[in-house]
Amino acid sequence: MQRELYEQARMRALAYFERAGIALTDTEKRNVEVADFGLNDLARTGLVLVTYLNTDRCCAKELVLFPGQTCPEHRHPATAAGEGKEETFRCRWGEVSLYVSGAPAARSVARPPAGDEAHYTVFHEIALRPGQQYTLAPDTLHWFQGGPEGAVVSEFSTTSRDEADIFTDPRILRAPVIE
Amino acid sequence: MQRELYEQARMRALAYFERAGIALTDTEKRNVEVADFGLNDLARTGLVLVTYLNTDRCCAKELVLFPGQTCPEHRHPATAAGEGKEETFRCRWGEVSLYVSGAPAARSVARPPAGDEAHYTVFHEIALRPGQQYTLAPDTLHWFQGGPEGAVVSEFSTTSRDEADIFTDPRILRAPVIE
Repeated sequence: MQRELYEQARMRALAYFERAGIALTDTEKRNVEVADFGLNDLARTGLVLVTYLNTDRCCAKELVLFPGQTCPEHRHPATAAGEGKEETFRCRWGEVSLYVSGAPAARSVARPPAGDEAHYTVFHEIALRPGQQYTLAPDTLHWFQGGPEGAVVSEFSTTSRDEADIFTDPRILRAPVIE
Repeated sequence: MQRELYEQARMRALAYFERAGIALTDTEKRNVEVADFGLNDLARTGLVLVTYLNTDRCCAKELVLFPGQTCPEHRHPATAAGEGKEETFRCRWGEVSLYVSGAPAARSVARPPAGDEAHYTVFHEIALRPGQQYTLAPDTLHWFQGGPEGAVVSEFSTTSRDEADIFTDPRILRAPVIE
């Protein structure tokens, strides 16, 4: 990601946090994480996040999704440290749709994994508005997308081990590279 | 606690959540927990809380402290399920002071435990304003108090096991009784 794009996304996300009434320290504002998953297409695929804490027992983050922006399909498998990450998404502002493999919900979406159009996974859509939340069991395949105005979402979870995450799209790199 | 006092505290807390920009569902608004710790002195000792989730791995809550209101001295010991609760307090609105046994901080406060004026524990004050947070190690003796305007505070933690909490004041009952 180019430094200029990072800076644009950072400033845009700070405006979302402000609108959602979420106070951040100056240090947090300076160090906002912009994830483009190495796809260099941030308007469509990516998110902005602030990690409040990530100890060896629990984790809390605040996420921003721009309008229509997607955090791509992935899961959190078990690791040598134990069970996979259990995560709860709570919408604070705007609207976010979670697409969860195997979960019962109102509407289901069949989607071919990138690079493998012959195989389809059935996802169920769980739309969250402010105050609504959903808890994902460990190792559940999922993706999520910001609504027409975007979203601010709190994530409450067990320890995040990003390096262990498995993304369906083999082109994805979780750690951002800023040029 | 009398039903009328519960209802007053619930409505007052909802106004704090609103002011802090925190969206709750109607179900959450109806079921807000008002804790007076059995002391029947809610203006001075107690808090109001909404528990977003409490699984066997992690927990997230939103707390309201009215001006000058105190959540009394306690700790979260290890249980048969494992290590004691690790908790992070993040101030969202107003101001909250944490008083933490043994932690280094700007100002320390000597305080006799209730019912045992002969023994003093030294607490360190950690004042949190919006966006600031502090993580408590398991089994650390602590108490906290709302500032002059009160506070809204997010709590991110491992599993809450209220029944295992040890309060210094032997008169305290953690589970509220509403008449």
